[in-house]
Amino acid sequence: MKIAILPGDGIGTEIVAEAVKVLKVLDLSFEMEAALVGGAAYEAHGHPLPESTLNLAKAADAVLFGAVGDWKYDKLERALRPEQAILGLRKNLGLFANFRPAICYEQLTHASSLKPELVAGLDILIIRELTGDIYFGQPRGRRTAVDGLFPGAEEAFDTMRYSRPEVERIAHVAFQAARRRNKRVTSVDKANVLETFQFWKDIMIEVGQQYPDVALDHMYVDNAAMQLVKAPKKFDVVVTGNMFGDILSDEAAMLTGSIGMLPSASLNDRNQGLYEPSHGSAPDIAGQGVANPLATILSAAMMLRYSLNQPEAADRIESAVSAVLSTGLRTGDIWSEGTQRVGTREMGDAVVAAL
Amino acid sequence: MKIAILPGDGIGTEIVAEAVKVLKVLDLSFEMEAALVGGAAYEAHGHPLPESTLNLAKAADAVLFGAVGDWKYDKLERALRPEQAILGLRKNLGLFANFRPAICYEQLTHASSLKPELVAGLDILIIRELTGDIYFGQPRGRRTAVDGLFPGAEEAFDTMRYSRPEVERIAHVAFQAARRRNKRVTSVDKANVLETFQFWKDIMIEVGQQYPDVALDHMYVDNAAMQLVKAPKKFDVVVTGNMFGDILSDEAAMLTGSIGMLPSASLNDRNQGLYEPSHGSAPDIAGQGVANPLATILSAAMMLRYSLNQPEAADRIESAVSAVLSTGLRTGDIWSEGTQRVGTREMGDAVVAAL
Ligand SMILES: CC(C)[C@H](C(=O)O)[C@@H](O)C(=O)O
Ligand SMILES: CC(C)[C@H](C(=O)O)[C@@H](O)C(=O)O
Repeated sequence: MKIAILPGDGIGTEIVAEAVKVLKVLDLSFEMEAALVGGAAYEAHGHPLPESTLNLAKAADAVLFGAVGDWKYDKLERALRPEQAILGLRKNLGLFANFRPAICYEQLTHASSLKPELVAGLDILIIRELTGDIYFGQPRGRRTAVDGLFPGAEEAFDTMRYSRPEVERIAHVAFQAARRRNKRVTSVDKANVLETFQFWKDIMIEVGQQYPDVALDHMYVDNAAMQLVKAPKKFDVVVTGNMFGDILSDEAAMLTGSIGMLPSASLNDRNQGLYEPSHGSAPDIAGQGVANPLATILSAAMMLRYSLNQPEAADRIESAVSAVLSTGLRTGDIWSEGTQRVGTREMGDAVVAAL
Repeated sequence: MKIAILPGDGIGTEIVAEAVKVLKVLDLSFEMEAALVGGAAYEAHGHPLPESTLNLAKAADAVLFGAVGDWKYDKLERALRPEQAILGLRKNLGLFANFRPAICYEQLTHASSLKPELVAGLDILIIRELTGDIYFGQPRGRRTAVDGLFPGAEEAFDTMRYSRPEVERIAHVAFQAARRRNKRVTSVDKANVLETFQFWKDIMIEVGQQYPDVALDHMYVDNAAMQLVKAPKKFDVVVTGNMFGDILSDEAAMLTGSIGMLPSASLNDRNQGLYEPSHGSAPDIAGQGVANPLATILSAAMMLRYSLNQPEAADRIESAVSAVLSTGLRTGDIWSEGTQRVGTREMGDAVVAAL
């Protein structure tokens, strides 16, 4: 078994180092190999996803990813910006199923913007389709408009699209995940406006018939954005397209107050996966040793469970993280009166000790 | 001056009746003419936006709109569903500038899902472009995929697009609105992924140079969905496209806890406008006389200010609403311990009395 370690930019290197430390202490037999990605790769090789990094990722059973991006690359042409690395990895590895749990950790309920009673015990799983939709649809570009409101004007355009097999496979992923949880799937669409999402909704209903034990409902994306604020605990599994999933999964993560704690997994049909924290590269605090490594450590746990077939090791990590939280150790992002503020490395060491 | 009154479906008829009552008591010289729209129009005329209703709206200086939609129309083909009426009105009247204030009323701070300190005094203006983007972009439909991940499969698609004049005019609307407020514009895009929104961002920067007194910043839509939850008061004017604006304006409205209070305005370049509450048709409580008419009454105030050139009358209505809230009267949606629960009509009467 081989893990590609791609720390990336900003706090990425610091948080991934802690996750690697945790993986090493488990003493399992897998190989780890690191490579540059994002801005760091651009600086060294002129491209955010060099051939060598992509090949390493493809050959690995799993990728542990930190974060990419920094304001200093804002002026680069889009194809060279750090985020292209993550899009390229998703595309090239076929990572169509993105799992983003939005969990409110009991010990951190007070850190949410929401009133505690609305988020205490919150546990939603957002499943975002990750290789289709307007993210990758062709054609796209700039041109002179031939119709629309201002024919003859300069315009830019993108194509939203989903094919039947793309929707079917993410639907199956969602229904199967719901079977392991509370057996409810909310499919989020905009079928009242978009052809793509009427099609999406039709297929969700079709596939749902194969899962009579799972309740399926449908919600427009604007309403979903509201219901997440109003009553997030009403959701179990939420399944949606790439663009809506980008927005809603971030909204949901922030609602929990635990965003520094939330892992994510992006899987293909061979259970090869990329694992990364839900938060970003936070260039404003990079290099200070204060970032929270727990989302990355929990991403490593997800990796052990989904791609490396080591569920016990995953459980051990998750219990260790919970134990550490219970001792009151906190990085700055989740610190509150009465808890003990620690840095990135101390937090990683505490997890190792708890193991 | 002529106002088209389009109550629509669900609670629409009840709340618009109260707004009309308020308008009448002002004793201004304008004519009002009512027509069916949405499901009500479909039942009577076989179409949610009959020619006669559209012509009335076009000929009027302003449209006061209630709400449309009911689950019972879910099975109709898309072109006949109630929501098509609102899309048709926007398109045919050229209502490209949608103003959706997200205000947290002092008396209702506790009604928010968010902790009071995060929303007390909140006052954001979301400006959503309303006639472009993927809502109206052609081509769209279903076909057999010729490329993409599954060539040969059935697929559905839509086109996102913006032309230069469309982005320029909404940019000017946003900068001018910011001048009347706190002089800050946040343009929300997804320039890291979409050609359309890199173009949008470029034009925002260009137009911004004509407003050196207004601060412009840029935020990705996923981050905006998070920052609205984390620190909504950091925003002043938010400007974005039709699709992102649909999602973010609903999220922001719900954050305030005052959604039953929030009006909206959709204007064209001749200041002709459609005014409607931010909430929907709420078929679950329709006909019970319990809906909150204040968002519609405040929409009528916006109408007086923006389309009918009666700013004093608008001020009078807004003061009357505030006075009524201060007396402790509340409809069910904003009721809390210690306040007095009233129905739709009593709330309308109270505003009339306060005038
Ligand atoms: C960096 C960006 C391209 C990416 C996305 O939009 O998918 C990010 O926001 C995410 O959610 O992983
Ligand atoms: C009813 C629907 C078509 C509409 C939209 O998506 O614009 C609504 O959600 C709104 O925001 O006014």
